[in-house]
Amino acid sequence: MNTLGLDALLAAALQEDVGTGDITTESCIPPEAVSHGRFLAKEDLVLCGLDVAKRVFELTDPTLSFTALRRDGELVKKGECFAEVSGCSRSILTGERVALNLMQRMSGIATRTAQAVSAVSGTKTRIVDTRKSTPGLRVLEKYAVRVGGGGNHRFNLSDGVLIKDNHISAAGGIREAIAAVRQNAPHTLRIEVETETLEQVDEALESGADIIMLDNMDNETMRIAVQRIAGRALTEASGNMGERDLRAVAETGVDFISVGALTHSVRSSDISLKFN
Amino acid sequence: MNTLGLDALLAAALQEDVGTGDITTESCIPPEAVSHGRFLAKEDLVLCGLDVAKRVFELTDPTLSFTALRRDGELVKKGECFAEVSGCSRSILTGERVALNLMQRMSGIATRTAQAVSAVSGTKTRIVDTRKSTPGLRVLEKYAVRVGGGGNHRFNLSDGVLIKDNHISAAGGIREAIAAVRQNAPHTLRIEVETETLEQVDEALESGADIIMLDNMDNETMRIAVQRIAGRALTEASGNMGERDLRAVAETGVDFISVGALTHSVRSSDISLKFN
Amino acid sequence: MNTLGLDALLAAALQEDVGTGDITTESCIPPEAVSHGRFLAKEDLVLCGLDVAKRVFELTDPTLSFTALRRDGELVKKGECFAEVSGCSRSILTGERVALNLMQRMSGIATRTAQAVSAVSGTKTRIVDTRKSTPGLRVLEKYAVRVGGGGNHRFNLSDGVLIKDNHISAAGGIREAIAAVRQNAPHTLRIEVETETLEQVDEALESGADIIMLDNMDNETMRIAVQRIAGRALTEASGNMGERDLRAVAETGVDFISVGALTHSVRSSDISLKFN
Amino acid sequence: MNTLGLDALLAAALQEDVGTGDITTESCIPPEAVSHGRFLAKEDLVLCGLDVAKRVFELTDPTLSFTALRRDGELVKKGECFAEVSGCSRSILTGERVALNLMQRMSGIATRTAQAVSAVSGTKTRIVDTRKSTPGLRVLEKYAVRVGGGGNHRFNLSDGVLIKDNHISAAGGIREAIAAVRQNAPHTLRIEVETETLEQVDEALESGADIIMLDNMDNETMRIAVQRIAGRALTEASGNMGERDLRAVAETGVDFISVGALTHSVRSSDISLKFN
Amino acid sequence: MNTLGLDALLAAALQEDVGTGDITTESCIPPEAVSHGRFLAKEDLVLCGLDVAKRVFELTDPTLSFTALRRDGELVKKGECFAEVSGCSRSILTGERVALNLMQRMSGIATRTAQAVSAVSGTKTRIVDTRKSTPGLRVLEKYAVRVGGGGNHRFNLSDGVLIKDNHISAAGGIREAIAAVRQNAPHTLRIEVETETLEQVDEALESGADIIMLDNMDNETMRIAVQRIAGRALTEASGNMGERDLRAVAETGVDFISVGALTHSVRSSDISLKFN
Amino acid sequence: MNTLGLDALLAAALQEDVGTGDITTESCIPPEAVSHGRFLAKEDLVLCGLDVAKRVFELTDPTLSFTALRRDGELVKKGECFAEVSGCSRSILTGERVALNLMQRMSGIATRTAQAVSAVSGTKTRIVDTRKSTPGLRVLEKYAVRVGGGGNHRFNLSDGVLIKDNHISAAGGIREAIAAVRQNAPHTLRIEVETETLEQVDEALESGADIIMLDNMDNETMRIAVQRIAGRALTEASGNMGERDLRAVAETGVDFISVGALTHSVRSSDISLKFN
Repeated sequence: MNTLGLDALLAAALQEDVGTGDITTESCIPPEAVSHGRFLAKEDLVLCGLDVAKRVFELTDPTLSFTALRRDGELVKKGECFAEVSGCSRSILTGERVALNLMQRMSGIATRTAQAVSAVSGTKTRIVDTRKSTPGLRVLEKYAVRVGGGGNHRFNLSDGVLIKDNHISAAGGIREAIAAVRQNAPHTLRIEVETETLEQVDEALESGADIIMLDNMDNETMRIAVQRIAGRALTEASGNMGERDLRAVAETGVDFISVGALTHSVRSSDISLKFN
Repeated sequence: MNTLGLDALLAAALQEDVGTGDITTESCIPPEAVSHGRFLAKEDLVLCGLDVAKRVFELTDPTLSFTALRRDGELVKKGECFAEVSGCSRSILTGERVALNLMQRMSGIATRTAQAVSAVSGTKTRIVDTRKSTPGLRVLEKYAVRVGGGGNHRFNLSDGVLIKDNHISAAGGIREAIAAVRQNAPHTLRIEVETETLEQVDEALESGADIIMLDNMDNETMRIAVQRIAGRALTEASGNMGERDLRAVAETGVDFISVGALTHSVRSSDISLKFN
Repeated sequence: MNTLGLDALLAAALQEDVGTGDITTESCIPPEAVSHGRFLAKEDLVLCGLDVAKRVFELTDPTLSFTALRRDGELVKKGECFAEVSGCSRSILTGERVALNLMQRMSGIATRTAQAVSAVSGTKTRIVDTRKSTPGLRVLEKYAVRVGGGGNHRFNLSDGVLIKDNHISAAGGIREAIAAVRQNAPHTLRIEVETETLEQVDEALESGADIIMLDNMDNETMRIAVQRIAGRALTEASGNMGERDLRAVAETGVDFISVGALTHSVRSSDISLKFN
Repeated sequence: MNTLGLDALLAAALQEDVGTGDITTESCIPPEAVSHGRFLAKEDLVLCGLDVAKRVFELTDPTLSFTALRRDGELVKKGECFAEVSGCSRSILTGERVALNLMQRMSGIATRTAQAVSAVSGTKTRIVDTRKSTPGLRVLEKYAVRVGGGGNHRFNLSDGVLIKDNHISAAGGIREAIAAVRQNAPHTLRIEVETETLEQVDEALESGADIIMLDNMDNETMRIAVQRIAGRALTEASGNMGERDLRAVAETGVDFISVGALTHSVRSSDISLKFN
Repeated sequence: MNTLGLDALLAAALQEDVGTGDITTESCIPPEAVSHGRFLAKEDLVLCGLDVAKRVFELTDPTLSFTALRRDGELVKKGECFAEVSGCSRSILTGERVALNLMQRMSGIATRTAQAVSAVSGTKTRIVDTRKSTPGLRVLEKYAVRVGGGGNHRFNLSDGVLIKDNHISAAGGIREAIAAVRQNAPHTLRIEVETETLEQVDEALESGADIIMLDNMDNETMRIAVQRIAGRALTEASGNMGERDLRAVAETGVDFISVGALTHSVRSSDISLKFN
Repeated sequence: MNTLGLDALLAAALQEDVGTGDITTESCIPPEAVSHGRFLAKEDLVLCGLDVAKRVFELTDPTLSFTALRRDGELVKKGECFAEVSGCSRSILTGERVALNLMQRMSGIATRTAQAVSAVSGTKTRIVDTRKSTPGLRVLEKYAVRVGGGGNHRFNLSDGVLIKDNHISAAGGIREAIAAVRQNAPHTLRIEVETETLEQVDEALESGADIIMLDNMDNETMRIAVQRIAGRALTEASGNMGERDLRAVAETGVDFISVGALTHSVRSSDISLKFN
């Protein structure tokens, strides 16, 4: 996880949650009080976000001590303690909610990704994410996808080329769009084209697409498409994949399945911080 | 919705999604091309986020024209068009994903809130949110809760007092905690206390709490608590309410039910932008 | 004092004061020179701002050592030394002015507040501040009020409700304004209403106001108002209180007196930093 | 007034004052309500800050209309209206306090400066400010000093050279300090030296100082110093000048008197915004 | 050119150049004075930066009018006027230096790039840039390269894969490094490998590299490498290419030549702004 | 070098170069790998930027160890190692390019400045820089000029007065312009006037200019100008001095020669980081 921008994100999150000060805590807990808190899984989950939680507490108060007992990516069972934080009670309480909000979301994503990866295990297909992530949290959410065993699609509009229907119509066709991109984009990027029919698959293939997205196709069409492409381009299934039978899709032979729901419709994992 | 901080949030979201430039679009769509796009609901939803989407496109390119055909809070049926955007094709494509990501999430929250509000209709109980929101998006998410018919609990640690178990044990008891807060916090804030037993309810009441949270109680205990309190303090049911029968909780007579799942476990509404 | 936003404030203040570099110091003091400086009160004052000064020097140069000899809130007599800083001479000189400017202002506020608090001692009345603070320094200035023994009114427009004349006329009356706020504002906030006549006091009381501000009333009117309210709402005297006899106001029985001059018309305390 | 950095300052001030939203106003004033407000002087004052107030309202809501009826630097009598703002009621109320807080402070500074300038009228002496300004507001406060008829000393440590006692002792003497600065500082800056005795004045003069500060000297000593210097350097009286008889100081013949109290101990002018 | 981040860059540049205000201009030019300025090429150049200059003046003063008479990428001859700016004299003078500094640099890059492109004209080889750009200006500098007819290599470490010697040794070999990247990096990116010998070229080819960088090879070795690769991977010549005979390099048959000097050793084009 | 703003600059530079993460490095180098790198001069150079490089690595990863073996300003011969960095391999590779880009540019400026200073050695003339620096890097570039033995002209428009032709014509003449500035600018600044003819030199002298710039004059005219001025003002030669014979200019007797090319047309020094 690249953390160069992380501090700004976490500082903003803390500012958002603390406002001008934690009035309850400052009013009734003396500054010298110390506590020891334990992070508990309240349901089975694939753990994700330990470094983020650790950094939240460091930013809140550098004298706090955060200790991870498990690692990102491990399965934690309901009731297990996976991390501890100790030190100034006021500081722990002030940082608690931001740490939990982030870890719960990240673990939720990792857990759901792991389920999707498991669904296609034994096939050659890779589960990947999309740009349908939460504004501001993309790097963290894509990290959580990797932790859950998935792969990442492009991070933003500048580090991947994806020619969609609107590009194709504006450029005058798949062939013209690919040619234009090949001329103008850095040669370090592969060129992906979205197709919805077998005719478009053929045109994309002939135009030299590096990756062919099979968008909203039924499994049978996808199977045919994969056979026609025959390894001359990578293939990626897409389109509401969160509601499809992923194994059946994988068995069409596609290289990748991109699942927007991994990040746009997340159920946060249930985690609590208990003092003792 | 207070928008003083909105531009910074949206600019960061656009920066995150655009990176150093939309390579695909800039490579294959000429700068003078214009388009007209229609936002369509792909499922029934309570609409939320029109002003946010409008502002995303203004920030992307001030010459774009965004027109809302419906209002935030209205029910939009599957297939209906609720907004349009027209102008420079490149700019629309560049802003599209951020606008969609935010509207989908906000509409998802409003839709779920409306379901919860509907579940308690006819009772005096109000559905409210919590601080379990997405870091960075709290103001938008709490706005979506209001659009869905819910109310807001405190926005952060400085604009509401909530004395929890850790505060109570550190202060030496409910009575001591309330006295400390009354001495130190602005007199403009009510004092809320979390209770888990009827004994704590009694102590909170005698200590002059303004709001008594009934945390993780079964419905029968809540009913007794509400009767004992008898209007001398406001009452708020809390604790995994996202998985409870909200109507049954409301029928205990509580004034408020706070539901963290409104914001921490959101299924984004399905919305698409179609060019024609 | 919540310090999450403090570093940004102090870094900006240092940038403002240092510009592109301390030319005098860098030109004539060698980088290896070390100094020891003592902070002296040049008049009696209630000390405030030690943590801020300490942080200014840490941000200027983490190798500097700042030692507080007294605590915020203590009375320091003319001529007494209350803190020391030692280390790199260049760094001390570069941070000196920002540290002094802030401590002098904060001590000035604390000193004036302590005088006001002393004026009402023996009564039940509390001196509180207002939003008439210096833009950018509100959290520090409200901290200084607390250090001087005063209390804080709301920090901003989102953490307290205060219905003023303009709100009342726009809403159609005190009753209507209170009802609207009760419907829309978080239930965690008390509702305060500004009144200028006894008739308004009556209406506010009947409408269920939690706090009634008695604005620009003479003492006799205030006394009557307090008697009518009879503890059913908190009372707050307001309106150029910086120029009133605070004890006389307190003896009307009001719960709070809010004094804008505590922060809008401050005489900085006289403090110097002497090297030896 | 250089305004390149003004927007950031004002946006931060608005954020500080508005928090997550103006709850009172949003709860009880409908979005379509419009108002017309008049800014009134509640005491005689030298007006300052019109452009700042105008910009505050523009940033709050670009549709507001702010009209200045007078100019910065004009004397406004008690009871006179000097500016108007009209448009959306909610927006006016949201921006009101920040606009007032800044104008009141700036007018307070301009008014006090004008008094000081008046005190030395007829002499050749110029009243100037110092770096003892409010952190974050220096550019605005120094502008107010100019509006009041005063001049500006350096804005920060990089745009002026001022060799103080600590520099002198570290450099090994006035002569050595001046030589070091002449070698290292941009040739575009004059060199000012602080002196406390006539011996130091002589040394500064012989070493080629461009400006000689006469610090904490009695008037008679200053008069002698001015005579010795005889125009070979500029002279500046300094040291708690806010509590001295400025005319008597001016009559010693000094070119400048620098008065820290112009900015560090300001009584805000009394200004109100009335709706009609 | 993606301009989402441009305003922040230009505002910072203006702040850097203006400081607390343009003292000379504000002191001796009245605010109502207007001027008309003409941008003149003082040597032949490939023009670049018109939009940037226009935006600099807009940010300095929105009432200024900037008119481009030519377009980015056009050859402008010595003495020709290519743009005009008119309006408030103070504002033009305040923005002048930043506008010139950026246009001169960008035109310098475009001009040099055009020379390099011209040197290889008639071959299939493309001139591209590197990451050896000026910190803070990368997007502008890479835009200037495109304006000069060159192409862009990756913009940063996240939008392109380039396996260098240190990666190879840490991974245990070219084969292992490529396999690791294929497993972990987004499938939207091509994989480029740096090679210094023909043996490494062979290994890269066998391991499935998409692009093979031929680093610091003499032309003869490069020619052999290109022949061995035979179109199975793209080829890129690299290593102090700014000092090589680019045509001779191109004639080895490489697809790309990356030239760091395009951005790291720029002679700014000579441009002046003349008032009339 | 004033470093208060340095961290923001370097963090932005790292963000620009790293994007959302160093994909190559993270994909094929294990997190626990450690390396030792040596910075080598690949040509003779005047070293500059050690503290900047050190800080880049600290910001990238606080556990890295950077050791300078030489000092800024020293001549380093081709092939010599002048600094080392060791620690986490991933972190070194991530920070490498930014550190190199800055050191190479700063050393390039220092080296060129040293050549210019050497050219005038033995004369009394000082080489100084201009405001023709790279936007965003001015403080670093002016530091590099000092390291190379040059002096600094003003840093920005607020810390120096330079009356140019446009100011003169707007003010109505040199005399009027100087009078206006003397009235309005801080007395801490010298007043410099740009002249192009001997008549203007005379007028500037009579009007009391502190510094007279001799702009675009041939050497003989400059010599006459210097003689006429005869020490009553400082003299500064200016105008494409990067292409003039600096020694010949110096021998006219001018006090300063300002050379824009020191910063606007830099050839970066060749430096590499080698692992062993």
